[in-house]
Amino acid sequence: MEKLLERAFGQDVRAIGRLISLVEAEAPASKEIMKAIYPHTGHAHVIGITGSPGAGKSTFVNRLIAQFRSEGKKVGVIAIDPSSPFTGGAILGDRLRMQDHAVEDGVFIRSMGSRGNLGGVSRGTHEGALILDACGFDVVIIETVGVGQSEVDIVKIADTVCLVLTPGMGDDVQIMKAGIMEIADTFVVNKADKEGADKVAADVQVMLKMLGQREWIPPVTLVSSYKNTGVEEVKDTINKHIAYLNESSEGKRRRYTQLEMEVEAILRGEISSIVEKSWNEKRTEELLESLALRKCDPYTLSAEILSKFTI
Amino acid sequence: MEKLLERAFGQDVRAIGRLISLVEAEAPASKEIMKAIYPHTGHAHVIGITGSPGAGKSTFVNRLIAQFRSEGKKVGVIAIDPSSPFTGGAILGDRLRMQDHAVEDGVFIRSMGSRGNLGGVSRGTHEGALILDACGFDVVIIETVGVGQSEVDIVKIADTVCLVLTPGMGDDVQIMKAGIMEIADTFVVNKADKEGADKVAADVQVMLKMLGQREWIPPVTLVSSYKNTGVEEVKDTINKHIAYLNESSEGKRRRYTQLEMEVEAILRGEISSIVEKSWNEKRTEELLESLALRKCDPYTLSAEILSKFTI
Repeated sequence: MEKLLERAFGQDVRAIGRLISLVEAEAPASKEIMKAIYPHTGHAHVIGITGSPGAGKSTFVNRLIAQFRSEGKKVGVIAIDPSSPFTGGAILGDRLRMQDHAVEDGVFIRSMGSRGNLGGVSRGTHEGALILDACGFDVVIIETVGVGQSEVDIVKIADTVCLVLTPGMGDDVQIMKAGIMEIADTFVVNKADKEGADKVAADVQVMLKMLGQREWIPPVTLVSSYKNTGVEEVKDTINKHIAYLNESSEGKRRRYTQLEMEVEAILRGEISSIVEKSWNEKRTEELLESLALRKCDPYTLSAEILSKFTI
Repeated sequence: MEKLLERAFGQDVRAIGRLISLVEAEAPASKEIMKAIYPHTGHAHVIGITGSPGAGKSTFVNRLIAQFRSEGKKVGVIAIDPSSPFTGGAILGDRLRMQDHAVEDGVFIRSMGSRGNLGGVSRGTHEGALILDACGFDVVIIETVGVGQSEVDIVKIADTVCLVLTPGMGDDVQIMKAGIMEIADTFVVNKADKEGADKVAADVQVMLKMLGQREWIPPVTLVSSYKNTGVEEVKDTINKHIAYLNESSEGKRRRYTQLEMEVEAILRGEISSIVEKSWNEKRTEELLESLALRKCDPYTLSAEILSKFTI
């Protein structure tokens, strides 16, 4: 284990991948891994990239990687993949090929499942990001699937949340619905070469005004990942946002809130697995039968299972 | 408390309403209420009515109530209301007026919030249904909002799930998406006087065939709530489904699964409050600061918090 960690801290791609796999699979060692990892974290800037499927997030992320590389930064990417690694298709294939020359390029790309968490950011995603942080990546990009309410969870992990929109997808309605408008720190209108991009950008500006005055006003940038325009601007915006977070009370508040949520998530996970275990031991055909017959009730039963937890 | 329960069991509308309010607000007494309620439950038939907003669920429910009343059954209704009770608008107003002569009519209608659970069925909904069950209602109807994936949760509570569709709403796509096709026990094509109703019914039949052979084949009924046609047929279908559930192994399996999910939901709720409480005691500005500085880690911290509990 110590050797594995040492190799990972030395930027050995296979060791890093192995650590993430162990943690993703919730292996028995995962808690020890995370304890060893944690003191080395807190240096990377974590960027969450979200937006509807089809908004061109992956292509945009590839362009953004190049921008950070041009600053000499090492970039780790976690792409949350809704599909199994075996049916991932073309995009995942490209990414895996990219991974071959990872260390030399200062880029590490990893695809992770969403662990049943529809389109979502799981505990495993967060732990993967922490591992990349500890292994010396200056920037960690988390690319989400972009589906559903759980998307908003990215704010629990990311320092900077970037929402990728694109013309002609009815995104204005979508973002209003998902409540993602409030959490985005910067907006990218991708496929800016397409008709309607200006309209999307204007709509976002209007909606931002409706949210009222805030210290950090999220910039809206027109980007063509295809023509590679506007991406540098987004990188500059992200760097500005880093500086803002480091200096402002808002940044401190956000870090503290994230830490609180992190502890709570770990606690919830721990207690849940203990409770699950005792419920599984307790659950029998007879017990369900006596519940069905109302000989006992689920409230008393729960209290019994949880009696270990009464302080 | 005992008096309140006694009055509620005696079908006192205000007492029943008070019990539901206490439980909905998660009042300190709510656990005791539910423990007292539970032994009296298990007699009502719980019907979940779901379908897109605008499908005419409320009007249909009103017609269905009349059908069950004609059989001499007492009917309790829980309408999940996405809006606050203060902005509920016309429909809620009508319903509250209806509630005035509830006991005499053998009908009790209650609107409940969705507790942040987008369009959803919350723990409170379930507890409300249990209260109505215990208070002697033969039929308990839960009318959902009809939005999103969480809609599917109705199957965790309802004995019979009724999906209300209507022509011209692109429902075929919607139901395929939400995975609600698999959980509906009966289909209602409402507004059958409108053009395209036959087409919707035929589409549903085709999709049901795709699901393969099952013991209970969900009937598809054309209904006009406006003209009051087809509603008696739906009532008969529901009664047949009750009989089927009582006799079949499928019915037993379903009851057991629901009981398991119920215990798990209660456990989950309890766990959250344990986490919150134990973390709140420990959380200080200093602790967050030392986490931020990586002087300690959330994993060790969680273990410390959990060490208080005798596991």
